[in-house]
Amino acid sequence: MKNAVILLSGGLDSATCLAIAKKKGFTPFALSFRYGQRHEFELDSARKVAKAYNVNDHVISNIDLRAFGGSALTDEIDVPKDRDDDAISDEIPVTYVPARNTIFLSFALAYAEVIDAKDIFIGVNALDYSGYPDCRPEYIESFQTMANLATKSGVEGNNGMTIHTPLIQMTKAEIIKTGTQLGVDYGLTHSCYDPCDDGTSCGHCDACHLRLKGFDMAGLADPLPYAD
Amino acid sequence: MKNAVILLSGGLDSATCLAIAKKKGFTPFALSFRYGQRHEFELDSARKVAKAYNVNDHVISNIDLRAFGGSALTDEIDVPKDRDDDAISDEIPVTYVPARNTIFLSFALAYAEVIDAKDIFIGVNALDYSGYPDCRPEYIESFQTMANLATKSGVEGNNGMTIHTPLIQMTKAEIIKTGTQLGVDYGLTHSCYDPCDDGTSCGHCDACHLRLKGFDMAGLADPLPYAD
Repeated sequence: MKNAVILLSGGLDSATCLAIAKKKGFTPFALSFRYGQRHEFELDSARKVAKAYNVNDHVISNIDLRAFGGSALTDEIDVPKDRDDDAISDEIPVTYVPARNTIFLSFALAYAEVIDAKDIFIGVNALDYSGYPDCRPEYIESFQTMANLATKSGVEGNNGMTIHTPLIQMTKAEIIKTGTQLGVDYGLTHSCYDPCDDGTSCGHCDACHLRLKGFDMAGLADPLPYAD
Repeated sequence: MKNAVILLSGGLDSATCLAIAKKKGFTPFALSFRYGQRHEFELDSARKVAKAYNVNDHVISNIDLRAFGGSALTDEIDVPKDRDDDAISDEIPVTYVPARNTIFLSFALAYAEVIDAKDIFIGVNALDYSGYPDCRPEYIESFQTMANLATKSGVEGNNGMTIHTPLIQMTKAEIIKTGTQLGVDYGLTHSCYDPCDDGTSCGHCDACHLRLKGFDMAGLADPLPYAD
């Protein structure tokens, strides 16, 4: 059993990613971040998913991206609502957090080195979120190249660090079908950018829109409650 | 005047790096980290250096590398003392923090994106610290490649992010001579891995050893007080 670091946001994609890593036989170590999100529901979901999958350890790392500003997820900018698919996929969204995946993968790299893991799983997706530069395959490849030059294992000639992105070319519907086959309980996950005070999903932000459309296209019901 | 992010540790190298960035005409924005160091003296020095250089802004970002363990700088491992040059340069030191420069540069990348800077300065040095994989030129080049794929500016075709490493091929003596010519007050900086309670440098850890040897080779006096 090889150790692997799984970046776990509490969302649908990363929960599926964790299930895939388990299925591939890795011993999962989950890593989540408290990075100035406006709500804690994401982390509650990450904890529930980590527990459901009996991960070997779950580290929640505190980092402060608010110091730099620049995103609706961490600032007081309004989250866009009821946008159509083209608007979501063609531009870099206001919810973009500068260098977020780079920062998350960098922490995963540190964690991997400490637990002697050569494998990192991240649930990025190039189709639904084409506006995020750090979700593209060429970005992930360049991160992997850099990671193997950055670390002890790279220096010692053991160039084995692999960044796994099993979802990168899947549609949301394919992700949901794959996870459902692997037994993922999507009722534990959280996607909404702008939940109600009780954690209920808004149903109108880009994340809710893509999630609901994904379940619809997969012919499955989303177990989450929505505000309307 | 172009904005630049300067990674500022409070040490001799990063202070010199800041002076070089100013000399090159950049408007400096300094970035330091509270990452679980065992002492705050480094950050006190970073603040003093930032103030002396009248930087445009100085962000101190809180990140928690202790969650992963693995280093004498953040754990309760003994800092090695009185090692000779070969021992310092030939192996990866116990003070190595996994993926530290990758994490620091990732935050610098986020900061750069927010302040619309295309230039990041980091005072890494490949000669004195050859044991650190993330101080090598090939690592820095790969980070720059990745950075230009990770960011909005990369997607928008403006592949202009540059990671500047003006010290990378300098000896410590050359760094000190360069900084002295630029008017750096090295009395404001801090290098020691294991200072006394009052902040006085120990004079025996690898960082003190390299610093003292650097001043000696440069034919200059280190303005810092030492414990003995």
